[in-house]
Amino acid sequence: MTAPLRTRVAIVGAGPAGLLLSHLLHRDGIDSIVIDSRSRDEIESTIRAGILEQGTVELLTESGASDRVLVDGHRHDGIELRFEGEGHRIDFAELVGRAVWLYPQHEVLKDLVARRLGDRGDLRFGWTATEVLDAESDSPRVVGTDAAGEPFEIVADFVVGADGSRSVTRTAVTGSMTGGYFREYPFAWFGILCEAPPSAPELIYSASDEGFALISQRSATVQRMYLQCDPELDPASMSDAEIWDQLQRRVRGTELIEGPIFQRDVLRFRSFVAHELHRGNVFLMGDAAHTVPPTGAKGMNLAVADVVLLHAALREHAASGSRTLIDSYASTASDRIWRAQHFSWWMTSMLHAAPDATEFDRRRRLGELESVVRSRAGSTYLAEAYTGWPLAGWPQA
Amino acid sequence: MTAPLRTRVAIVGAGPAGLLLSHLLHRDGIDSIVIDSRSRDEIESTIRAGILEQGTVELLTESGASDRVLVDGHRHDGIELRFEGEGHRIDFAELVGRAVWLYPQHEVLKDLVARRLGDRGDLRFGWTATEVLDAESDSPRVVGTDAAGEPFEIVADFVVGADGSRSVTRTAVTGSMTGGYFREYPFAWFGILCEAPPSAPELIYSASDEGFALISQRSATVQRMYLQCDPELDPASMSDAEIWDQLQRRVRGTELIEGPIFQRDVLRFRSFVAHELHRGNVFLMGDAAHTVPPTGAKGMNLAVADVVLLHAALREHAASGSRTLIDSYASTASDRIWRAQHFSWWMTSMLHAAPDATEFDRRRRLGELESVVRSRAGSTYLAEAYTGWPLAGWPQA
Repeated sequence: MTAPLRTRVAIVGAGPAGLLLSHLLHRDGIDSIVIDSRSRDEIESTIRAGILEQGTVELLTESGASDRVLVDGHRHDGIELRFEGEGHRIDFAELVGRAVWLYPQHEVLKDLVARRLGDRGDLRFGWTATEVLDAESDSPRVVGTDAAGEPFEIVADFVVGADGSRSVTRTAVTGSMTGGYFREYPFAWFGILCEAPPSAPELIYSASDEGFALISQRSATVQRMYLQCDPELDPASMSDAEIWDQLQRRVRGTELIEGPIFQRDVLRFRSFVAHELHRGNVFLMGDAAHTVPPTGAKGMNLAVADVVLLHAALREHAASGSRTLIDSYASTASDRIWRAQHFSWWMTSMLHAAPDATEFDRRRRLGELESVVRSRAGSTYLAEAYTGWPLAGWPQA
Repeated sequence: MTAPLRTRVAIVGAGPAGLLLSHLLHRDGIDSIVIDSRSRDEIESTIRAGILEQGTVELLTESGASDRVLVDGHRHDGIELRFEGEGHRIDFAELVGRAVWLYPQHEVLKDLVARRLGDRGDLRFGWTATEVLDAESDSPRVVGTDAAGEPFEIVADFVVGADGSRSVTRTAVTGSMTGGYFREYPFAWFGILCEAPPSAPELIYSASDEGFALISQRSATVQRMYLQCDPELDPASMSDAEIWDQLQRRVRGTELIEGPIFQRDVLRFRSFVAHELHRGNVFLMGDAAHTVPPTGAKGMNLAVADVVLLHAALREHAASGSRTLIDSYASTASDRIWRAQHFSWWMTSMLHAAPDATEFDRRRRLGELESVVRSRAGSTYLAEAYTGWPLAGWPQA
């Protein structure tokens, strides 16, 4: 084993949260090492959804991470809620003066990797953390195996677990891999990518008697669409014709442009919040700290909100030695996390029929959708959450 | 059996809905007979809760039914939502420029009975309807037993079932006593009346780890309070001291003024909507058509909204013979009913912990409460529904 590496902040996980934190710390002259068990190519090519809140876009562009989202992303000034064969637009621009951007997460990752490498950031791909140690000491450590299969050790002032839903860092904070608050949902999304022009300019969230469907976009020639399905569905079990038939039925009143389907996957729905987000000098953020079902498009945005808080805390500590923001990180982050968990649960339960739902439940849900779209206040409440609550601590002077 | 009585509108049930409809029809010169199996004394002395939406109050006063609510009722410009030891006022006046009135249902009943009798209205107490017949004919009939135990028959142009949750009229409309959409809740409210001055100027809806509590008022010397409880709770099983201890714990952060408890009851929670609201010349309204859990205070107000629609329909028919509003009654009423069912379910599920709730559920609910009180739009959305959506068709020129 080679001599331990030393850094101020060891970041486990080169996802959007880890890379963005590393970038923001770099701007303040705070060095970090980011490690990830995956290769750069694997990280950049894993196709993910991506709706960016306005605050996320502002942070990426104003911090100098990248302004490619403004060029290659698509600004959406609203969404459509569809039920009973009618579409109802939630007009974000008019209701809250804000927007979201359609820009896939893997594009954010490419931007952040390029930025960090351009700034000579220390990114180590293929480095697998196996354990985080000494969380409550001044020298927490990350140990694991490097890209050559050799053991490594990184000694830092702080360790940040941005290592996703299967976080190994979590054990150092909560005492176990699984210590957290859970909720499972009795349905999943069957997602497809297809070659076709967009069927709609904005996302369509459609509740129908056949189940939920989401019509999303990817580019001028590739579209992303989802069907509510049984979590055990085999993605290969439906023919293209069956998929299109289901999609068309679930958005009745509008007509989807069909095309060859070239990717299929099933997304499980799961809500999770780790019991603790911070211990000593080790922190959790992003999917390591929480996962949300995809209906509210909150996943990556919630990670970015953690980054903003943790960046402010580490910067304050570097500048003055103060631990005030470090000590309040968990409670401040939790506040937003639970509101976002609620929002994600709300969008999910308002738009999906559970398998055991009664006719009362179905009509009650339609009463809810009707209430939301008919009330300016109800629509505004939804739009505020969807476009993103203010990011505490950003922009900073 | 005596000869059949004839009237334009036979109304089964002398509750607020039946009496108010009879009053409004009288103003248009349309005669009606109202029957009820209970005595006048029984009707007027059954103590019920009562939060009147502003539209309900306007209807009572502007139609000349009574303006006693303005004198003896209490206008409330808000409610308090309480959780985690802190109160958050939802300021109706400021958010939506509207209010509600605390005025018990039995006082509304006294006013309406006095008004109808003052106008020489035909009210028959102790008359028990056993069946409504010939719904699809031009001469639907109500048969039953009068106050002397003799059979009676009322032949009318229209029959209105305002005979409460155990409606016998419902069979003539839906084909069965129970035909409807149901939802049961795994908890109930333990209600008390006590001799004490008010502990708060407005209602307090409090979510706590021990369960929900509602602090309401009745007068300067009598208060009404509720505790979430098991539906099987024996009201006699708790001592006064235990009740006060539970109430105080559930509103922690504020202090209740205690006093002798002189009435106890357990209110079951139940949501119901009849499968049909109209057949031929027979209609259902009020509790005969729907029941809601009490959390949103929608019960009597929803009945009043039905009355407004049905009054307009019967008036239009009397004036022109048109059945347009008669034929649209069920769908127009349903729209509001399902939004009110949603609101009642929402208030209930946001404020009560179900017995099988997990810690995730509890924190998600707190995230929701936090979202609602922190968002002006969220608070407005709640205030709009609580103070009452506009009453379609009222006031009428």
